[in-house]
Amino acid sequence: MTPTDPAPPGGPASLAEVPVAVETVLADFFDRMRPVTADIGPAVGAAGEVVADFVLSGGKRVRPTFAWAGWRCAGDRHATDATEPDALRVCASLELLQACALIHDDLIDHSDLRRGRPTTHRVFADLHRVAGWSGNADEHGMASAVLAGDLALAWADDLFAGRTTATGDPPPTPVPAATGRTWAAMRTEVLAGQFLDIVNEVGGDETVDAAYRVIEFKTAAYTVSRPLQLGATLGGAPDSLVTDLGSVGRDLGVAFQLRDDLLGVFGDPDRTGKPSGDDLVAGKRTVLLATGLARAADRGEALAAELRGLVGHPLGDADLSRARTILREVGAVDEMEDRIRVLLASAIDTLDGAAIDPEIRAELAAMGHRIAFREQ
Amino acid sequence: MTPTDPAPPGGPASLAEVPVAVETVLADFFDRMRPVTADIGPAVGAAGEVVADFVLSGGKRVRPTFAWAGWRCAGDRHATDATEPDALRVCASLELLQACALIHDDLIDHSDLRRGRPTTHRVFADLHRVAGWSGNADEHGMASAVLAGDLALAWADDLFAGRTTATGDPPPTPVPAATGRTWAAMRTEVLAGQFLDIVNEVGGDETVDAAYRVIEFKTAAYTVSRPLQLGATLGGAPDSLVTDLGSVGRDLGVAFQLRDDLLGVFGDPDRTGKPSGDDLVAGKRTVLLATGLARAADRGEALAAELRGLVGHPLGDADLSRARTILREVGAVDEMEDRIRVLLASAIDTLDGAAIDPEIRAELAAMGHRIAFREQ
Repeated sequence: MTPTDPAPPGGPASLAEVPVAVETVLADFFDRMRPVTADIGPAVGAAGEVVADFVLSGGKRVRPTFAWAGWRCAGDRHATDATEPDALRVCASLELLQACALIHDDLIDHSDLRRGRPTTHRVFADLHRVAGWSGNADEHGMASAVLAGDLALAWADDLFAGRTTATGDPPPTPVPAATGRTWAAMRTEVLAGQFLDIVNEVGGDETVDAAYRVIEFKTAAYTVSRPLQLGATLGGAPDSLVTDLGSVGRDLGVAFQLRDDLLGVFGDPDRTGKPSGDDLVAGKRTVLLATGLARAADRGEALAAELRGLVGHPLGDADLSRARTILREVGAVDEMEDRIRVLLASAIDTLDGAAIDPEIRAELAAMGHRIAFREQ
Repeated sequence: MTPTDPAPPGGPASLAEVPVAVETVLADFFDRMRPVTADIGPAVGAAGEVVADFVLSGGKRVRPTFAWAGWRCAGDRHATDATEPDALRVCASLELLQACALIHDDLIDHSDLRRGRPTTHRVFADLHRVAGWSGNADEHGMASAVLAGDLALAWADDLFAGRTTATGDPPPTPVPAATGRTWAAMRTEVLAGQFLDIVNEVGGDETVDAAYRVIEFKTAAYTVSRPLQLGATLGGAPDSLVTDLGSVGRDLGVAFQLRDDLLGVFGDPDRTGKPSGDDLVAGKRTVLLATGLARAADRGEALAAELRGLVGHPLGDADLSRARTILREVGAVDEMEDRIRVLLASAIDTLDGAAIDPEIRAELAAMGHRIAFREQ
């Protein structure tokens, strides 16, 4: 899955070109790591390949795209020494961080599939079975996925900082302090969001506030705000613009997740690649579900109890249809759609007032519309 | 467990003072992270405390001590901008990295105790039980320990790079490129060593070579060579000295692990804090066991089969005693002791030829003797 078109000099000309450019950087990174891991031992080489396959075989590259948008928002100010290749490298490092998050998330959730392929712990368990090794294949899959996620996280930091394992390489441009602070905050925040998520789930917190708090950290900061700010600080953007981009990112990030919630219940499986009503079956504590439960409770505890009973276990067509009907009839769906529109309008308003180039403003506005109203 | 004696200005005067100085840096780091995690949510604050407790509640601080020794080996050359506080910070970051390694290792091994206290996944499982949350407490412990290890790994990199989450802090001194390369190599190597370890185990590779290969990466590089080189490169040591310290570290690191193997079978539980013959019961594929099996096989497959049968399950006193007798009688114990002496002599020889200050040479030699012949 190595992309064939190299990034043009100077970096991608439009946001649509970011994914291919980032994949080139990632493929190059894995090419450089391949001899390092293989020399240590075949088992390590194989583990490195699993991580590389995972990173190179898909994903929308949303975070790198926002990071590159942030870099372009900084425009020609360039109060830093960072160059376009530095910026692309930082963008690409977000995909390694995301690989750690997904590999460990899938392990925690015991998921079997990700993007239609076996999840990482399943891949390692299968390697164990095929090799006919001793012991429990699933235990081996678990252990290997813990380590593979750790490797992705360590490599994310290395790529972010421009560290190489080869002695002859030129030293990296030091990352500006503000970019380092953003990177530090982002990693703590996404892990914090995951902690909130698992504790809300076992603690049975089904309030709308709790659900919003999870997506504030797990999605909004991690997926949009912090990537935008990473790119902007790397390019030397002034503090006021970094603050504006944080606000734009928060609005778009929450809208992104609310759309995700709707797709998780109402999405077309052929387009989303996930089973119909997947979030309900999985019992995900989304803002949509929390809102639905709160609004159902307003009409009587029986309705809330009915909705609650339709969550967290396999559902037949009739059950799924009934859950959807309740969510629609209590107004939870309309509330989400309204909220998405308000958030998008707020993001566009902040963008319109920000001191950025008209072209990147237009591209970011288009991207905002795209993620707010996407169908997959 | 916050230490009370602050580090003197200029850093610890002797290697014996490194642990307290490093604990001060770590305690300060956690003090700074406390409001960050607590503000995100109580569950996150609690998780941060679990990591802080783990890091501050024990450990010999071997890696930071070697890193500080490396810094002192660089002497007054100081071809870099790094200061003593920078060096101490880099030393301390090794303990956060080690926290990730141990938290995830304990999870992979399903260990219940570490240093006489419940392991991290057990701590989180207990929190789940005490709170009376829904779902499976052990599953919650697993999920939380994955995330807690990730947090420690991310924080290790933040402390290494001097990143802060507070905007007003002065920017960190950029870490020299050679130090960054060493840090990158070390993290990949320790994870690689763990991969080799788990694959050797399930693959049934009981050769002496395979056992040495694991400790080369999992212990020698990670515990001694790379820490020495981190400190040395940070202080601007010339390449020849960095190479010498790598060689010293490899010798001492292997000796350290061979002693560990001996203590794991013959150690006094009152001194080691681990049950008697712990490594045999756990079925650890140590160099000692691999050597014992190879030498037993030379005397006949029956003896090797007997030794193999005494490994990997709970052992009574008679069984344990028999396993020890075989390891002694086939000469595996003597071989380990000889090897430790040869490695120590080689390390001292390299040290004696290295261009370093006599005082740090003497301290490193003493530390080498101490870890090679330690009883706990």
